[in-house]
Amino acid sequence: MANKTFSHVLLMGREGIAGVPETLEKTHQYLNQQGVKVSVESNSSQLMSANHQVIADHEISADIDLIIVIGGDGSLLHAAHIAEQYALPVLGVHRGRLGFLTDIPPDAIEQIGPVIQGQYLIDKRHFFVSEFTTDNNEKQKELALNEVVLLPSDTAHMIEFDTYANNELIYEHRADGLIISTPTGSTAYALSGGGPILHPSIDATILLPMFPHTLSSRPIVIDGSNQVRVHINDSNDSAPHISFDGRNKKRLQLNSDIIIQKHQHPLTLIHPEGYSYFQTLREKLGWERRARRT
Amino acid sequence: MANKTFSHVLLMGREGIAGVPETLEKTHQYLNQQGVKVSVESNSSQLMSANHQVIADHEISADIDLIIVIGGDGSLLHAAHIAEQYALPVLGVHRGRLGFLTDIPPDAIEQIGPVIQGQYLIDKRHFFVSEFTTDNNEKQKELALNEVVLLPSDTAHMIEFDTYANNELIYEHRADGLIISTPTGSTAYALSGGGPILHPSIDATILLPMFPHTLSSRPIVIDGSNQVRVHINDSNDSAPHISFDGRNKKRLQLNSDIIIQKHQHPLTLIHPEGYSYFQTLREKLGWERRARRT
Amino acid sequence: MANKTFSHVLLMGREGIAGVPETLEKTHQYLNQQGVKVSVESNSSQLMSANHQVIADHEISADIDLIIVIGGDGSLLHAAHIAEQYALPVLGVHRGRLGFLTDIPPDAIEQIGPVIQGQYLIDKRHFFVSEFTTDNNEKQKELALNEVVLLPSDTAHMIEFDTYANNELIYEHRADGLIISTPTGSTAYALSGGGPILHPSIDATILLPMFPHTLSSRPIVIDGSNQVRVHINDSNDSAPHISFDGRNKKRLQLNSDIIIQKHQHPLTLIHPEGYSYFQTLREKLGWERRARRT
Amino acid sequence: MANKTFSHVLLMGREGIAGVPETLEKTHQYLNQQGVKVSVESNSSQLMSANHQVIADHEISADIDLIIVIGGDGSLLHAAHIAEQYALPVLGVHRGRLGFLTDIPPDAIEQIGPVIQGQYLIDKRHFFVSEFTTDNNEKQKELALNEVVLLPSDTAHMIEFDTYANNELIYEHRADGLIISTPTGSTAYALSGGGPILHPSIDATILLPMFPHTLSSRPIVIDGSNQVRVHINDSNDSAPHISFDGRNKKRLQLNSDIIIQKHQHPLTLIHPEGYSYFQTLREKLGWERRARRT
Repeated sequence: MANKTFSHVLLMGREGIAGVPETLEKTHQYLNQQGVKVSVESNSSQLMSANHQVIADHEISADIDLIIVIGGDGSLLHAAHIAEQYALPVLGVHRGRLGFLTDIPPDAIEQIGPVIQGQYLIDKRHFFVSEFTTDNNEKQKELALNEVVLLPSDTAHMIEFDTYANNELIYEHRADGLIISTPTGSTAYALSGGGPILHPSIDATILLPMFPHTLSSRPIVIDGSNQVRVHINDSNDSAPHISFDGRNKKRLQLNSDIIIQKHQHPLTLIHPEGYSYFQTLREKLGWERRARRT
Repeated sequence: MANKTFSHVLLMGREGIAGVPETLEKTHQYLNQQGVKVSVESNSSQLMSANHQVIADHEISADIDLIIVIGGDGSLLHAAHIAEQYALPVLGVHRGRLGFLTDIPPDAIEQIGPVIQGQYLIDKRHFFVSEFTTDNNEKQKELALNEVVLLPSDTAHMIEFDTYANNELIYEHRADGLIISTPTGSTAYALSGGGPILHPSIDATILLPMFPHTLSSRPIVIDGSNQVRVHINDSNDSAPHISFDGRNKKRLQLNSDIIIQKHQHPLTLIHPEGYSYFQTLREKLGWERRARRT
Repeated sequence: MANKTFSHVLLMGREGIAGVPETLEKTHQYLNQQGVKVSVESNSSQLMSANHQVIADHEISADIDLIIVIGGDGSLLHAAHIAEQYALPVLGVHRGRLGFLTDIPPDAIEQIGPVIQGQYLIDKRHFFVSEFTTDNNEKQKELALNEVVLLPSDTAHMIEFDTYANNELIYEHRADGLIISTPTGSTAYALSGGGPILHPSIDATILLPMFPHTLSSRPIVIDGSNQVRVHINDSNDSAPHISFDGRNKKRLQLNSDIIIQKHQHPLTLIHPEGYSYFQTLREKLGWERRARRT
Repeated sequence: MANKTFSHVLLMGREGIAGVPETLEKTHQYLNQQGVKVSVESNSSQLMSANHQVIADHEISADIDLIIVIGGDGSLLHAAHIAEQYALPVLGVHRGRLGFLTDIPPDAIEQIGPVIQGQYLIDKRHFFVSEFTTDNNEKQKELALNEVVLLPSDTAHMIEFDTYANNELIYEHRADGLIISTPTGSTAYALSGGGPILHPSIDATILLPMFPHTLSSRPIVIDGSNQVRVHINDSNDSAPHISFDGRNKKRLQLNSDIIIQKHQHPLTLIHPEGYSYFQTLREKLGWERRARRT
C-alpha cells in the first residue's frame, strides 16, 4: 500500500482515564525514536511530565499531518472535532478496553511504526451537521460523528415531533425522543436502544424513536444523502432538548425545525493494516467464541 | 416527466385471492379503452371469462413493454421473476389491503391511464442471486427479491454456520437460522424478526440471525455490493434448508457454502406519480394517526 | 353474582379531554334516574353547568361507596389515589379511545345500571409504595399504580445504580434509567420500552432497564412480594430523578436507596360483567383481526 | 437449616460432554468416602471404568433419595424426567460452563458434602403437562420443564392458531410458531426469542409468538395456574409440529387442540447453601462487571 507517510504528529490524551499519562509518555518517546516530530495538545500536555513541544489548538500548523489520540472512543470523538477543523487524519490508541474507534492496544504502540511509514488503512466516516434554533431564538450549528439525540425536557417525558427525509414526511412521532445516528454511531448509543449495526461503508442514516408510543414503530434506515428534518410541534408543553455525541445539550425552540445533513468534510480514521471492523465488533460485543447451549 | 409510454401490456393475476378475476376483467377492459394492446398470461387467463389474447410465458414477445399484476405482494414477487427474464417493468394493482409493492387500489384503476402515457415514477429494486449446493451435491442458483432464509431441518432446531462479507468473517453463528434480506425484504419477513426498515434506495443487505444463542447479537447491515457467504459447518447433525422469498425450499449439503450477491439485472417497479414510500409504510404499519397516551 | 350494590357515587372527570363535560352531565343524570345519590368532586364540578351536589376531596364521607371517573387511563390513575385513601372501588367511563382501565364507552353509560345493582366483576390492582430520599435529604413516600421510573438528570444521560430483590443483588446497572412496573403498568410506559405484558392477576414486578449499556440485559420479572431496592451510586456525576405514574418528578439524593414495595391497600377496579382483559388488549394493540401476509 | 439428609445417591451423566466420565468417577469416589451409598444409572455406567453398583431405570428402588447428575442443563432436563417419576430431588454438577440448573463446579465437588448432611436449599420447579393429538389421530401426553414449542412443518413457515387462557381467547395468531415457557424455561429458548426473564418463584407462564405477523405483538405472561389451550386452525395448509424441551418432536393433527397445564408433581432442585439465582444469571449472561461506556 502506497499511502502517504507521516512526519509531524499531534499527540492528544484525556484527563481522567487510567493509564493515559503513561501511554502519552511512552508514545511520545516511541515517536521520537522513530524520528517523527511530535507536538502535544496543550490540555494533554498537562498530563505529561516535561520535555515536550506544546501546541495550543489554534496554533496547529500546516505541517502537522496526523493526530494520535490516547484514550477511549469518547477521547477520539473529542479529537475528531479538531481533526475536522484542520483536515487531519486520526489514529487511536485505546486505554482500558478496545474501542470501536481506537484500535491500537497500549502495550503494542510499536504498531504505530508501520503506520508512520505509510502502511495503514484509510476509513472515512461522515459527520452530521445540524442546524437548529435554541429557545432564545438563536440559530446554531453543531457537528456530530455518532448521533444527534432529541430528548425530553425536565418536566415532560414525551415529545410530539414529525420527521422528514428530503421534505417527505416519514412519521408523526409521539415518543420520548429520537436518535438520529450515523453508521459510526450505530455501535454507540443507538445500539442500546435496539438499533441495527451499520457497517461504516454504508451511506445511510438511522432514525430510532425512543420509547415510541406506537408499538409497530421500528428503526428506519434512510439514504445518508437525504436531509433529515425534525419538526418540533408546538403542541408540546415544554421545549425538548437536543444533544450531539452526548454533549452540548441545548434547549430547542418550540415550533422550530432541526435540519441534519451529512457534513461536507469527513473524518479520516487511520487503522493499522490487518484491521477488521467485524473483528472489533465480535470482541466488543462478546461474540468471539461460539457459545454452547447445554 | 418524460418517461417512455407503454403500448402492449402483459396482464397477470393469481388464483385464490378474492376479487382478482373481477379486477383482471376490469383492467383488461380499461386498457383496451385506452387503446393499449393487452395479452394475458396463460395461467391468469383461466381466471377470466373469454375474449382476450392469451400468451404463454415462453411466448412473451419483444413488443410487450409492461407487466401489470393484480393481487398482493406475493403475486408481484411471482411476476418479478418473469419481469426479470424479459427485462420488463412491473406495475401492481392490489386486492385486499394495500401492498408494499402493489400501489394501485382496485377501485382506482384509472390511475393506470397516466402511467401508460409516461407519467410515472421508476423504482429499481435489486434481486439476490444465490448459489448453493443441495444435499444431493447439485450446484443450484436462485433469485430472490425479498430474502434468502437459512432455516433448520425437521430434526434439529439450531444451526451452526459462519457468515462472511467479501470473505471477511462477520460472525460464527449458533442460531435457529439466518435471514439475508434486501431493502425490499426489510418490510417483509425480516420485519417480523425484529429487523430495521431500509429505504429501497439504500444499497445494503440485512443479516438477521433468528433466535440467536448469543444475546448481544443484533441485526447487521452491510454494503449491498458485498458478497455474502454463509458456510454451513459440518458440526451440524443434519443439513439445514434454504428458501427464497418463502418458496423453493431446498435441503443443503453440510460443509458447503451459500454465495449471495446482488443480481446484475434489477426489477423495475412502476409507481403512479405522487407515490410515497413512507406513506405506504405508515398505512401498512398503522402509523397514520398520532396515537394519544391517556 | 351477589356483589354489593352501590347507592352513593362520587363522580369525577378531568379537564382538557374532549367530551368529558358532556359525559359528566349525562352520567349524573343517568345515575339520578337510577335513584343513586351523586356527589361531584369539586374540581370536576367546574366542568359541569349546575344543579349538582359538590364535594371537596377532604369531605368525602363514609356513605360514598363508588367512584365513577370519566376520561382516560390518566384520569383513572388520578382518581385511584383518592380511591385508595377512602378505600373506594372505581369504575371508569372512557372518552376518546378505549382505555386499559376505563371500560365503559361514553355512548353506553347504561352499562352502569347493572353495576349499581351488583352485577360486576372485581379486579384488585396493587399500588407500589416507594420510600426515597430527595436531594435536600428529605425522606419521602409516594404511591404508583403503573410504574416508578428512575431517570437521568438534565445534565447526564446515564445512571449507575444497583438493584436488589429482598436485599439480594440482581444487577449493577449502567443505563439511562429503570422502569419498575406493576402488572397494571405493563401495558403503559413499560410496553413502549419493550417489556412483556403481565396479566393483572400475577403477583409480580417488572424491572426494565432503559437503554442499558449491557446488550445481554433483558426485562426481569420478580415476585411481587419482593422488596425492590435501588441504590443510587455516588459514582454518578449528578443526581437522577424519580417519577411515579409519570408524575411527581423528584430529584434524588446521591448514595441513597429507593425502597419499593407492594402497598397494603389495593385498588378495586370495577368492570361490567362480560369484561375480558384480553379483549381490551386485542382492541388497544390492534390485534383484533388476523392480518394477512400477501 | 434442618433439611433431610441423603444416604443413597443415583448418579447420572451424559455421553458426549467432555469431562463427564472423569467427574462421574470423582463424584462416585467422593460420595463413597462420605459413607453414602451410590448406584449408577445404567447408561451412565458405561462411561465409567468399573467397580460400581449399576441400576436400570426401572429398578430405581425406594431407598434412593437423591439424584446427582453430571453434565449441562440438557443432562439435568433428561434426569428431571426420572426424578419426576420417582419423586426424587436432583443436584447438578456442571461440566464446561456453569448451567442455570447445574450449580456445582466439577472442581468443587466437596460442596456435595454439606448437601448430603442436610445443608442445602430447596427449589421447586414445575413441569408442563401437555395433551395433544398427533396427525395419526392419537392422543398423547408429554412433560416439559422448560418449554413447549409449536413450530411449522417442513413445507410452510407460518401457522394460524388461536390461544386461550382458561378458555378465554387471548389472540388469533399468525406466526412462525409459539413458545409456551415456564419460568425455568425463561432463561432457555424463550430468551433467544426476546422473552423476559422470570424468577422461578413466580407462578406464571410465558406465551411468546415466534416471528409474529402483527408488529404490536408482545410476550404475554399469564397466571401459571391457567390452562393454556392452543387451537390449530384447519386453515393451515400443513400440520405444524410440537416439541418439548427441544425433544420429542411430533406432527399435530389439524383442527385439534393442545392443552398445557402445570403438572401436579414439581421437580425438586437442590442447591448448595449460598446459591443465588441472580448470581447465576449475572454469570451466565455476562453481567458481572459494570461495563464502561467510552
